[in-house]
Amino acid sequence: MTESKRLFNFSSGPAVLPVPVLERAQKELLCLPGVGASVMEISHRSKEFEPIINGARANIRTLLNIPDSYDILFVQGGALLQFAMIPMNLLTGKTADYVVTGTWSKKALSEAKLLGNTRVTWDGNDTGYRRKPCDDELNITNDSAYVYICSNETIEGVQYQVFPNTGEIPLICDASSDIFCRPIDITKFGLLYACAQKNLGPAGVTVVIIRRDLIERSVNNIPSLLNYKKISEAGSMLNTPPCFAIYIVKLVTDWLLNDIGGLEKMYEINKEKAALIYSVIDDSGEYYKTHADKKFRSIMNIPFRLQSDELDKKFLTEAKEAGLITLSGHRSVGGLRASIYNAMPKEGVITLRNFMLDFAKNNPYNRRG
Amino acid sequence: MTESKRLFNFSSGPAVLPVPVLERAQKELLCLPGVGASVMEISHRSKEFEPIINGARANIRTLLNIPDSYDILFVQGGALLQFAMIPMNLLTGKTADYVVTGTWSKKALSEAKLLGNTRVTWDGNDTGYRRKPCDDELNITNDSAYVYICSNETIEGVQYQVFPNTGEIPLICDASSDIFCRPIDITKFGLLYACAQKNLGPAGVTVVIIRRDLIERSVNNIPSLLNYKKISEAGSMLNTPPCFAIYIVKLVTDWLLNDIGGLEKMYEINKEKAALIYSVIDDSGEYYKTHADKKFRSIMNIPFRLQSDELDKKFLTEAKEAGLITLSGHRSVGGLRASIYNAMPKEGVITLRNFMLDFAKNNPYNRRG
Repeated sequence: MTESKRLFNFSSGPAVLPVPVLERAQKELLCLPGVGASVMEISHRSKEFEPIINGARANIRTLLNIPDSYDILFVQGGALLQFAMIPMNLLTGKTADYVVTGTWSKKALSEAKLLGNTRVTWDGNDTGYRRKPCDDELNITNDSAYVYICSNETIEGVQYQVFPNTGEIPLICDASSDIFCRPIDITKFGLLYACAQKNLGPAGVTVVIIRRDLIERSVNNIPSLLNYKKISEAGSMLNTPPCFAIYIVKLVTDWLLNDIGGLEKMYEINKEKAALIYSVIDDSGEYYKTHADKKFRSIMNIPFRLQSDELDKKFLTEAKEAGLITLSGHRSVGGLRASIYNAMPKEGVITLRNFMLDFAKNNPYNRRG
Repeated sequence: MTESKRLFNFSSGPAVLPVPVLERAQKELLCLPGVGASVMEISHRSKEFEPIINGARANIRTLLNIPDSYDILFVQGGALLQFAMIPMNLLTGKTADYVVTGTWSKKALSEAKLLGNTRVTWDGNDTGYRRKPCDDELNITNDSAYVYICSNETIEGVQYQVFPNTGEIPLICDASSDIFCRPIDITKFGLLYACAQKNLGPAGVTVVIIRRDLIERSVNNIPSLLNYKKISEAGSMLNTPPCFAIYIVKLVTDWLLNDIGGLEKMYEINKEKAALIYSVIDDSGEYYKTHADKKFRSIMNIPFRLQSDELDKKFLTEAKEAGLITLSGHRSVGGLRASIYNAMPKEGVITLRNFMLDFAKNNPYNRRG
């Protein structure tokens, strides 16, 4: 490969970004037009940065049709810090319900346990984390502080198609790996957050969409930068925010609105891309196997395996030679995984599909082995 | 000015970056050589990112001559989160001493007060924060958890020339605005940290240099991402770090080592640049006035004022027309301020000096009013 040739990158995160976004950032890297300095070199309180952060916020509001009763915060620390901030701000001495559907909701639970009272209201461990629960399997008590879910488990490739109905109890959602992959009804959630490095931008910024009445729960004796109320009151500028990452979020959301045409369109494209891979798997006569139950398959992350670790390795090596990179599964589970986030072009998915078809033909598996 | 012309940018932070760093980042923005993806699009655990984070760490170790008895951590949240993490990890039920020498050490104190017991061991408020204390003015008790100082107060322009000797009590230092401006003896400190957006890189990453015995103080029931022990054990990868910001830190420290030639050389350049501005102020017959006592003048931030707010405004406007931008003082104090961090080229400082000389000549002040 040439030094500067871009390959099809199926990384689960930090993940592929839209090429027009990278090209714009590249062009402006030494000098924002008319400003005389890079976006990395200007004050977050300057009149030049204002339209960037306000623009990113407005784009997010438009894309998800977020009413004024919610605030949109930019914070640091990724999902792991949200795992802590959510109980620190919202438990208020009560107990929270956690729905454990895979690695990431399990991690959220274990962080919350350090900081307050939790209850596991459903755990998919018995069934190998292949599905999400139905509402009647959830056993939520009336005095619950909140119900916590992970929208899409990147490692298991399991995604909610219908979100649980938790009534008056606030539903808290980690949407790090599938925000903006489809339209959602934000009013079903008390708080929905996403770290940037899958569908939003580079690692280093996290978007928190929070219902304003929940903001009021924050107590004073926690670090200011972890206090939703203080962050909200300061317009996400308690201190210098991660300006460059927010700038990229602005460009990515511009791209979603203007180049793609919004989340309905993005959803159509994503369903089409996912079907191109799942259909190869389903039609392969178990040559390729995926993890999730059909109804709960993720349209963002497709973990799959061949018949042996050796074939998995051969697949990885030859895929890389064909310009298809970072297809290995998470280090905790092994196997293979294709992450096909918003910015993965259809061309990349078709190239992977064709490679999978050719590989199966060229490497027949002896079932009697 | 043309759309893409870089100007001399005296911003206090996020601040000017070295042009060779920006040019390299621009060139590689769509594709790290041989990787097939942007540095924003690759896994933090990939073999491609490893030399970047390890290289940044090694460069910092070399530049400050840091022995193995210290670890170097990359964290998020800026100085404001360190204001909280320091007491959360290091107080262990004791009381900490704070030396208040200006706005930033005062803010650190107010954050620590939310989380534990503090004592003000010196406060420069009576003298308008024009100087740092001498050792014999500090009244540190033997059971103090630590002594907290701010190396350089950006708003008041006051910098330690000699750091306090605190004996067995760990000295904790916010060096956000003057790290790498000169060589220091790191073994005088228990912990020294700096957010990136002045002398290190873009906003979004903070470097924490911590003595390994202090790491052991961290307790378990605080958020993992705020726990120095857990961060250290995970090699600053408890979760996805701010990869792009760390990449820029790597390039900035490469530049310090290879283009500048280390911190002794950087110090010579910085002293020379500062003298070019202070000498105009001192020789102006009080046309220009600065804030700090001579012995404690910062070589990074030079706040100054003219004879009236109107003249300050005229200065700002005409400076901008001359291509010298962001020279206004902090919103809390007004006036003017020239921040001349490592990456501010000498040419920029000379241009400012000449502008100041011309402005004074062209705008004589009638002393009798």
